[in-house]
Amino acid sequence: MKGADTEFMERRSIIENSFRGLQQNIIAALEQEDGKGRFSTENWERTEGGGGITRLLSKGKIIEKGGVNFSAVYGKTPDAIKKGFSIDAEEFFASGVSVVLHPENPFVPIIHMNVRYFELSSGEAWFGGGIDLTPAYVFHEDGLAFHQALKTVCDRFDPQWYHQFKAKADRYFYLPHRQECRGIGGIFYDRIKPQNEKDFEKLLAFSLNLGNTFAPVYTTLMRKHSGKEFTEENKNWQLHRRARYVEFNLVHDAGTRFGLETNGRTESILMSLPPMARWESNFIPEAGSAEEKSQQYFSLPIDWIG
Amino acid sequence: MKGADTEFMERRSIIENSFRGLQQNIIAALEQEDGKGRFSTENWERTEGGGGITRLLSKGKIIEKGGVNFSAVYGKTPDAIKKGFSIDAEEFFASGVSVVLHPENPFVPIIHMNVRYFELSSGEAWFGGGIDLTPAYVFHEDGLAFHQALKTVCDRFDPQWYHQFKAKADRYFYLPHRQECRGIGGIFYDRIKPQNEKDFEKLLAFSLNLGNTFAPVYTTLMRKHSGKEFTEENKNWQLHRRARYVEFNLVHDAGTRFGLETNGRTESILMSLPPMARWESNFIPEAGSAEEKSQQYFSLPIDWIG
Repeated sequence: MKGADTEFMERRSIIENSFRGLQQNIIAALEQEDGKGRFSTENWERTEGGGGITRLLSKGKIIEKGGVNFSAVYGKTPDAIKKGFSIDAEEFFASGVSVVLHPENPFVPIIHMNVRYFELSSGEAWFGGGIDLTPAYVFHEDGLAFHQALKTVCDRFDPQWYHQFKAKADRYFYLPHRQECRGIGGIFYDRIKPQNEKDFEKLLAFSLNLGNTFAPVYTTLMRKHSGKEFTEENKNWQLHRRARYVEFNLVHDAGTRFGLETNGRTESILMSLPPMARWESNFIPEAGSAEEKSQQYFSLPIDWIG
Repeated sequence: MKGADTEFMERRSIIENSFRGLQQNIIAALEQEDGKGRFSTENWERTEGGGGITRLLSKGKIIEKGGVNFSAVYGKTPDAIKKGFSIDAEEFFASGVSVVLHPENPFVPIIHMNVRYFELSSGEAWFGGGIDLTPAYVFHEDGLAFHQALKTVCDRFDPQWYHQFKAKADRYFYLPHRQECRGIGGIFYDRIKPQNEKDFEKLLAFSLNLGNTFAPVYTTLMRKHSGKEFTEENKNWQLHRRARYVEFNLVHDAGTRFGLETNGRTESILMSLPPMARWESNFIPEAGSAEEKSQQYFSLPIDWIG
């Protein structure tokens, strides 16, 4: 039987290699679909252990601004991480892939994806992640197809997961100060602890399946909407919805706040912010307009799939 | 001798009338200087007691977006307010005037002013407030004149105040995650408790003096810079600095966070956000450029007046 240390190191490298590969796959698919934009590459190291690869894109043909970040950090467990676990442990390992894309065309939605893994030297560990969609203009059939794709991934692993994780996303991606959902949700899972080796494999497979669903789902939406003509009014509405995205990320998003408060890499964390956003006081879309119809989708979470 | 209740009510009405007048004076001066923009008026009431007047301006000739808000609220003391005081009290009264102005021309600075007063039915009370300047382009002589004007007001009341309150502003208007000052500071005072009636009068007079210094100081800057021609590069730099303003207000500003977390009036609180802002990853101004020269002012607080 292998010792705990060996197992710890093996799991680390499985996770790290899988997530690194996921980052590469997503980038290849996005660059191909965009046709023009290329992701820059910045390798960084963490003084206390580990590092990451920040890959940013600016002014592509379809993607105006975005990032696909990978990190794998380890070392002495920071206090801020310790509170999430029941057992005290000397060392930690954390790895993840995070994606946020801000398209230029107002009819292409903003998308966010994240998969992550935490482990302590005591053996305690958890998986987390999710995908959610933030369209300025909601196309009902897109919302349906998006949620269906997520359900298909979940159903391969557990028939309860889609509904559980969809409800979690609805609760999480909500702006109380605006009484609005950020977008049309998706799935969100957090602190799912593997009970044994088989469970670890299942949760990793789920995270990778989800990660690999991201590119086909999003490139389909890029292809479908990025050629559409848009007016200044359409752009204004997009800039207004992006401002809500900024508010969510800076006021509410746990990952962003944790990163900023624990002296994280600011440019990597804030890659999630849009290239441009607009705040107009008391802005209310005109009655009967396409903007108002989309706005209605944000007032309450939608039950997309029965 | 008057009872505590009568004194409480008298102070309330003195504060409320003074602050209401201050709001009117500032608006008159700004509308006159802008020449085109007019502030809208929204009277609102707080269910639990009191209310306010939100006055917003959009698309003026010089001011692109701004607000001059007054409020005077009272009633049963909310828990969130109680923690700031040593004595428990049933009732509270809070009143203030808040100003944030975002000019269109990148050479005109953003400005923020606030004066506020809290009182509990137990008699405990405090004053707070300040003015600070956030230029995209720093003109040294403007910074000097601005700080000198603040020092002149402070010196009328206490020779220590300017230096004390200037240091407080430098600490407060700082973005740790960017290791940057928000702008070129100003003065900030908080929880200054009047020890007796005379002290109350002194602190109120100081707050009103400061409030009434705002309009002449800022209209001078409007007049000086608003006619300047600017390029797309100048505008981009302004939009970049405005993004930092958004980051400060949503991540750090105590008033904004308190307001959003205690279910305040979102549109009144977030009037401070700019009409448009821009996030470009890893944006660094060119060596030797005017933008880089301004950036240098933000790296450490400047000792403007010996």
